[in-house]
Amino acid sequence: MKNLIFPCLIVLLSQPLLAADDTTDFTFNEAALAHAHTLREQALRSDLAYTITADLTTRVGARAGGTPQDALAVQWAVKQLKALGFDRVWTQPVTFPYWHRGQESAQLLQPVPQQLKITALGGSPGTAENGLVAEVVLFADLQALQAVADDSLNGKIAFINKRMQRHRDGHGYGEAVVARSNGPAVAKAKGAAALLIRSIGTDNNRTPHTGTTRQPEDGSAIVPAAALSNPDADQLQRLFALGIKPELELRLDTGFDGEATSYNVFGEVTGAQPEQIILLAAHLDSWDVGTGAIDDAAGVGIVTAAAKLIQDLPGIPQKTIRVGLFANEEQGLYGGFEYLNQLQLQHPDAPLVEHVMAMESDFGAGHIYRIDARTNAAGWSVVDALHELLAPLQIELGSNGKPGGSDIFPLINAGIANIALRQDGTDYFDLHHTDNDTLDKIEPEAMQQNLAAWAVTAWLVSQSGVDFGSGTLAPAND
Amino acid sequence: MKNLIFPCLIVLLSQPLLAADDTTDFTFNEAALAHAHTLREQALRSDLAYTITADLTTRVGARAGGTPQDALAVQWAVKQLKALGFDRVWTQPVTFPYWHRGQESAQLLQPVPQQLKITALGGSPGTAENGLVAEVVLFADLQALQAVADDSLNGKIAFINKRMQRHRDGHGYGEAVVARSNGPAVAKAKGAAALLIRSIGTDNNRTPHTGTTRQPEDGSAIVPAAALSNPDADQLQRLFALGIKPELELRLDTGFDGEATSYNVFGEVTGAQPEQIILLAAHLDSWDVGTGAIDDAAGVGIVTAAAKLIQDLPGIPQKTIRVGLFANEEQGLYGGFEYLNQLQLQHPDAPLVEHVMAMESDFGAGHIYRIDARTNAAGWSVVDALHELLAPLQIELGSNGKPGGSDIFPLINAGIANIALRQDGTDYFDLHHTDNDTLDKIEPEAMQQNLAAWAVTAWLVSQSGVDFGSGTLAPAND
Repeated sequence: MKNLIFPCLIVLLSQPLLAADDTTDFTFNEAALAHAHTLREQALRSDLAYTITADLTTRVGARAGGTPQDALAVQWAVKQLKALGFDRVWTQPVTFPYWHRGQESAQLLQPVPQQLKITALGGSPGTAENGLVAEVVLFADLQALQAVADDSLNGKIAFINKRMQRHRDGHGYGEAVVARSNGPAVAKAKGAAALLIRSIGTDNNRTPHTGTTRQPEDGSAIVPAAALSNPDADQLQRLFALGIKPELELRLDTGFDGEATSYNVFGEVTGAQPEQIILLAAHLDSWDVGTGAIDDAAGVGIVTAAAKLIQDLPGIPQKTIRVGLFANEEQGLYGGFEYLNQLQLQHPDAPLVEHVMAMESDFGAGHIYRIDARTNAAGWSVVDALHELLAPLQIELGSNGKPGGSDIFPLINAGIANIALRQDGTDYFDLHHTDNDTLDKIEPEAMQQNLAAWAVTAWLVSQSGVDFGSGTLAPAND
Repeated sequence: MKNLIFPCLIVLLSQPLLAADDTTDFTFNEAALAHAHTLREQALRSDLAYTITADLTTRVGARAGGTPQDALAVQWAVKQLKALGFDRVWTQPVTFPYWHRGQESAQLLQPVPQQLKITALGGSPGTAENGLVAEVVLFADLQALQAVADDSLNGKIAFINKRMQRHRDGHGYGEAVVARSNGPAVAKAKGAAALLIRSIGTDNNRTPHTGTTRQPEDGSAIVPAAALSNPDADQLQRLFALGIKPELELRLDTGFDGEATSYNVFGEVTGAQPEQIILLAAHLDSWDVGTGAIDDAAGVGIVTAAAKLIQDLPGIPQKTIRVGLFANEEQGLYGGFEYLNQLQLQHPDAPLVEHVMAMESDFGAGHIYRIDARTNAAGWSVVDALHELLAPLQIELGSNGKPGGSDIFPLINAGIANIALRQDGTDYFDLHHTDNDTLDKIEPEAMQQNLAAWAVTAWLVSQSGVDFGSGTLAPAND
């Protein structure tokens, strides 16, 4: 299994590629601008993104990589893209280790029996069938756990109590998620029997947040690991504050069972230059909790609807608009890595030769507030120019050198040009990777503004005639 | 088992007892007013109500009637009231049918496997061990289910999809809760195998709302019954809108197992007239979901802290301030009925002879916005006068003839005088009877305002020297 960062957002990967005053003037032709205006107004009245999102969450629901529901989601996507009339619809197989979640429970035994709400971290091994009973030891954060001597925890349960902070751009996630990604390996090294973490989430619901944990590169084991909901973590914290050492029973029926194959699903609006591709990405899989509405049926809805609106314009776009709905993002960007892998097999010397640009929607369905990018100077001039169409949507111009995306992370890392439409994520981590990720959390009006930004941006990138630098950009920092 | 309404709030029980212009002037003596001012200012700085609430939810947590945690809660309450230095602390046994909740699950089978979030209704029988599988039939509300022919549902699962409306005074609860209280008996009569209801709650979390269902007075059976969270009910609703008939598997390991005994717990501040009692009520039990913070550890905290602040004044109050923490409110007001029962045995001709007034806090820890009452005319004059002390707390004067309380409902029904301090319940039914009823939902500052209103009101009732009419008031309408 590959060892990855587990994004759903990647920000601030590298330094700006050029200073703001390097921007040169760029002007779109009038036909391109007229169609951009049309797209924007149509999107603001369109319910297509919402309808697609509703259909996926209702007819399929949760669709964790490798499950029967994941296979249904692939069927759904192929049928959906064909029904929308895309020029070409196809799939690409993606194979990965299959991880299952069975029963999971935690019960406080001392000082008083209380059920605690937990969810196993993706990739966690199970406990013994009868569970394990141990004293809990509190750590303020991952660093505090790292600071204790190896093998000193003596079969106890380590508990990392770091709370994620709420921010519009979601950067609190990156600060807190190390407890989830690295904690189980560190806990193993310290001699713990298991790890509990405070959920990497900003809510106060008893809906704990799952998410993948990192498997050590040397193949060494990790301990069974689960997240407590924030109110349950508060409860443990209060017990410690009273001087009480909690003891609890943890049972996880989880683990890896061989391999599974799922599929990336693609649909295209063929452009006048068919082998010049603008990739609009989202991921088709979800976690098994919730119904994957904001993560990432919303992205599926937004990128599909944006491409459909462009297809429905008179004539054809200059470049090909490719919708990419990727497999098993949640457990390690498997679909995204396989996509790059196939490009490398096809074009060993220039894997990105056919790609103008990649963009991704994987941060909910909220209002877009900024446009960032990672392009060459000519590309940034285009972004600067197209921002005029976005400004009336209350979208600010961000900066170059700030890419974003999850499935397209391998492509960005390989030097693809990228535009990142930043979605308001203030409430995103209330819901992300929880039971609460359901359709009712999506505001149709915010989604229309989001769709408008996507349609306008993809269209104007296509019509700009500019090489954004894909394949010539330095690899982004991992 | 008694057949009851399941309150947690009772409003609008009867018509006003007197018109507003019947109010006569009443004036408190200066010492009473000075102490009332002191109480108000102390309460606004006091963390005692919050501290008590935190301690009960942390050290005990969920405490459903008859469980080991309920017994722990009784021990906790006795210890707490003694530690606070009340003049007299004692318990009163309360026996009731014991209902247990084991495993509970619902899984959509058709059109696609999806886990649904449910919680059994209190009093529900279980399904067979392997569960039951049946088609779901949609009803907009209880009336729609009542309208179909008896025995016509043919082993299907009835689903009542009525959504509760949000209001500050919580009156949407009364409108919606009939589906929960009466639905399982109606579903049985219609030939259904089970009943699902949309949660009686105003939130969009996947934390379904439990609560007691009514057992038919003729002893006939009801069907296994559970509430779906609002997002899960939405999901079923969308499937029906697509023309799909959902099929699901329901498993409930629930039911009655003999009897259990718990205890009402009392603590008193003895007054100058010791056998003239002002009862400040809350309930000690909770549902087994959540940790019973707003329902009703908050009430325990508020009434206990109010009595303690009065005790700590110089001198003693005119009347006895009795804190009553009642047993098993949730499953049928058992503690409240037993309290009245014992009064009737003690004083067969005048059970309320020693009671001046009863008041209850069982609607969370929010801001108090109105004072209502059910008293005689002289009593209402006192309420009118004491409202001057409450007005600076942004509390409006309500009206006479509008009692409130849950454990004290039997007393109100028997004609006790009552003052109802109305708490803002706008968000109460987001949390009530769910996993989410945890301490973090309580705002300490709102609770201080609430406590101030309680301390001032109880104190001034005590010092008024007025007979509020307990025992002479007409029985309230059930």
